[in-house]
Amino acid sequence: MSVRKSIGIDKYENFPEWYQAVLKEAGVIDIRYPVKGMYVWMPYGLKALRLTQRIIMDLLEKTGHQEAYFPTMVPESVFSREKDFLQGFGGETFIVEGTVTRRFNERLFVRPTSETVMYYMWNMWIKGRKDLPLKMYQVVNVFRYETKMTHPILRVREIMGFIEAHTAHPSREEAEKQIIEAIGIYKDFFNRLQLPYFIVKTPPWDTFAGAEYNYDFITVMPDGKGLELGSVINLGQKFARAFEIKFMDTDGEEKYVYQTCYGVSERVLGAVIGIHGDEVGLFFPPEIAPIQVVIVPIMKPGEKEILEYALKIGSMLESHGVRVFIDSDLEHTPGWKYYYWEMKGVPTRIEVGAREVETSTVTIARRDKREKQVVRLEEVLETLRKIWSEINEYLRIKGLEHLKKKTVFLPDYLENKGFNGLIIAPWDGSKGCAEELEKETGRNVLGEIVESPISLPPPTQYMACSNKADRYALLGVTY
Amino acid sequence: MSVRKSIGIDKYENFPEWYQAVLKEAGVIDIRYPVKGMYVWMPYGLKALRLTQRIIMDLLEKTGHQEAYFPTMVPESVFSREKDFLQGFGGETFIVEGTVTRRFNERLFVRPTSETVMYYMWNMWIKGRKDLPLKMYQVVNVFRYETKMTHPILRVREIMGFIEAHTAHPSREEAEKQIIEAIGIYKDFFNRLQLPYFIVKTPPWDTFAGAEYNYDFITVMPDGKGLELGSVINLGQKFARAFEIKFMDTDGEEKYVYQTCYGVSERVLGAVIGIHGDEVGLFFPPEIAPIQVVIVPIMKPGEKEILEYALKIGSMLESHGVRVFIDSDLEHTPGWKYYYWEMKGVPTRIEVGAREVETSTVTIARRDKREKQVVRLEEVLETLRKIWSEINEYLRIKGLEHLKKKTVFLPDYLENKGFNGLIIAPWDGSKGCAEELEKETGRNVLGEIVESPISLPPPTQYMACSNKADRYALLGVTY
Repeated sequence: MSVRKSIGIDKYENFPEWYQAVLKEAGVIDIRYPVKGMYVWMPYGLKALRLTQRIIMDLLEKTGHQEAYFPTMVPESVFSREKDFLQGFGGETFIVEGTVTRRFNERLFVRPTSETVMYYMWNMWIKGRKDLPLKMYQVVNVFRYETKMTHPILRVREIMGFIEAHTAHPSREEAEKQIIEAIGIYKDFFNRLQLPYFIVKTPPWDTFAGAEYNYDFITVMPDGKGLELGSVINLGQKFARAFEIKFMDTDGEEKYVYQTCYGVSERVLGAVIGIHGDEVGLFFPPEIAPIQVVIVPIMKPGEKEILEYALKIGSMLESHGVRVFIDSDLEHTPGWKYYYWEMKGVPTRIEVGAREVETSTVTIARRDKREKQVVRLEEVLETLRKIWSEINEYLRIKGLEHLKKKTVFLPDYLENKGFNGLIIAPWDGSKGCAEELEKETGRNVLGEIVESPISLPPPTQYMACSNKADRYALLGVTY
Repeated sequence: MSVRKSIGIDKYENFPEWYQAVLKEAGVIDIRYPVKGMYVWMPYGLKALRLTQRIIMDLLEKTGHQEAYFPTMVPESVFSREKDFLQGFGGETFIVEGTVTRRFNERLFVRPTSETVMYYMWNMWIKGRKDLPLKMYQVVNVFRYETKMTHPILRVREIMGFIEAHTAHPSREEAEKQIIEAIGIYKDFFNRLQLPYFIVKTPPWDTFAGAEYNYDFITVMPDGKGLELGSVINLGQKFARAFEIKFMDTDGEEKYVYQTCYGVSERVLGAVIGIHGDEVGLFFPPEIAPIQVVIVPIMKPGEKEILEYALKIGSMLESHGVRVFIDSDLEHTPGWKYYYWEMKGVPTRIEVGAREVETSTVTIARRDKREKQVVRLEEVLETLRKIWSEINEYLRIKGLEHLKKKTVFLPDYLENKGFNGLIIAPWDGSKGCAEELEKETGRNVLGEIVESPISLPPPTQYMACSNKADRYALLGVTY
């Protein structure tokens, strides 16, 4: 581990440098893997990811989605069945043609996402109304030969933690209800992580390959680039027709099912890192912090009582499910340790020295404020929980401020064209108007804003667009 | 779901048919995926697998192994560095040469196991003694173009739940200690699952590609075929040399590290299914049963009190971490449900009807014995735990009987050459003697037995082999 204690870079000034430094110093990712766009997850970063995944998996389970596992490779003939999908994903899909010593008769496509892999089976599974709704999810690695510039966690060629849910329904209405449920699940998920986001409905000319329409959750990174956190997709009957997924309805007629799918990935953790981090380093929301409390005994060699006291507090906390680390290393000073663990994003710290042992107290320091408090031993757990909830609120507010800082209304943008960030622009929903906006701003229309963390005044007519601006578009350059 | 209630096939008479029926009826695997050797994990089967994986992951964590994630694809130049490894795995390694629209400059090899993927990085990570020992594991999918006949879970082309641990040490002695620790971990793991096994040391001419020697855990399936449950490998310095993994020792000299690795996979669950299952169907050890107790309310439509009573018991048990399912479906009779859930391997069942409600009791039935007991409500949890521990013991003993039934000493084999199973034969450790034994039995020497669940008399000289038979070989045909 490096001896640098704080990152010491302003993420708004130089995000790429800040981001790389944080990933490295905090032990999240090693970027030196010899394949472009593929990275190694270090234990500390992976732990945070596993905790993040647990949240969304629990939310999916609670709403009746069952975990399954479908293979990574799909025959070319199956992959090619839905033509829009093939068109959209073909170019970036890795292909296996054989082994070192043999060539296959049929090429295998490595899943960039699992629609075709799953729906081939659903054709056999879905027979009648009682098989519906079918709600499944899987946690898998998917592969995309990204032609955009790759970035660790944010845009990669192996998405190693893709959590994709897929559903089938007997009617359009029920599929649309499922879209609402999915949006609700994702809102819960991102809210638990204190991430700010817009929800946009993507324009028809930019929907997911094979979909009718989709909603995207968009946030913004410190460099002003937009980041898609998750996507909720109404597939309509396109795949159902391609894969002949039919059910016998109660009226005795065979009908195609209606499908939805939605996915999130490790990218969500990338957003947490970029949005909650600061000059000190990482800042994990307590729920996903690999270490929630670091205990630093302040002692000289041989002061066994202090260490024992620290151990006692540690096991007390662990018995309540708290993730604790006791840093009893004698090589570094307490001050060094404070910086080090703050850089690693640990939300709370307990300091114990001779005074604490004597008075049966602990000193609690927190990652959000330069403030310490002394509490009695029996109040430690309760105090920590209170602090974590305050930290969550702190991160939520700071996240919102961040989003506001990196988002601008169109008129303000036109006053300051050097602005890096998302742009909110009145829009009439037409392609023509979108193109004008894109030309004007050098950014893409990401969709129509359907939910905004920033309050929006009624849209007004603006500029070259028609008189009918009745909604807002979100524009941005994305990862 | 089918209406068949019990599997009704003797697994010893017709294992392939029994196995396929169980996988299908109990909802473990769907074998109809259109790529040979790749299968779909159904929610119920996957749940059991996740619970199984949790056990070994916890054992690895507790012994200081940290979870990491390394990419799936490795450049050909990196894959080829260790020549024995390349030789051993090259032919069965899937290769990506590009996407639909482009050809890569360098081919990417899809990991059949992750030595090369990891050790490329370890070269950069390991500098001094303080970086050692390094103990890591990952849970990943790996791909092998098996030329042997494929079988669901047992021999597949996508191993979707490979749990591979890798370690590096400063000395041969420490690496050897690690081998002992790893063997201990695997013993704990298989013992928790009540699986019987031999431990063998593989002969030098049959070690893992790139290894010095390895220990294999071998069990036997109902058809008499051996199954490797896990492998513990001493890599010596072969990879360290190929990947230049060196550390500065305390004496100021740069030295190569000593490495070990060990892996298990979903195959372990295949063994659980084959060894513990019976004519009724699956039989899960309680620790990995997706449903530990099914509650069957015995009621007519509208008997709300009984259902409420069942729900109350269910939530009481759930609050203690018990995995419960309440089967309140009115379509099927209680008898049908009993068979159905026994077929699914649920170890215990609670029946509640009017009498139970009145007397504040429940009736508990168990999967191992045709025996029911009535217990008071407040004793339910305690009774279940007692029954589960008895069921574990029952499975352990039955598993051992199974292994004995499918294992024979060489002299007995020669009396009955039709025997399907493993053979224990006195051996002098030489290749010549091994070849004779193989010729005589039509089976392969899997290794020298170093631990046996069957007590072994002192080896005696036998037949064509030399006079020096001082150990036992395990012979078998394996999956």
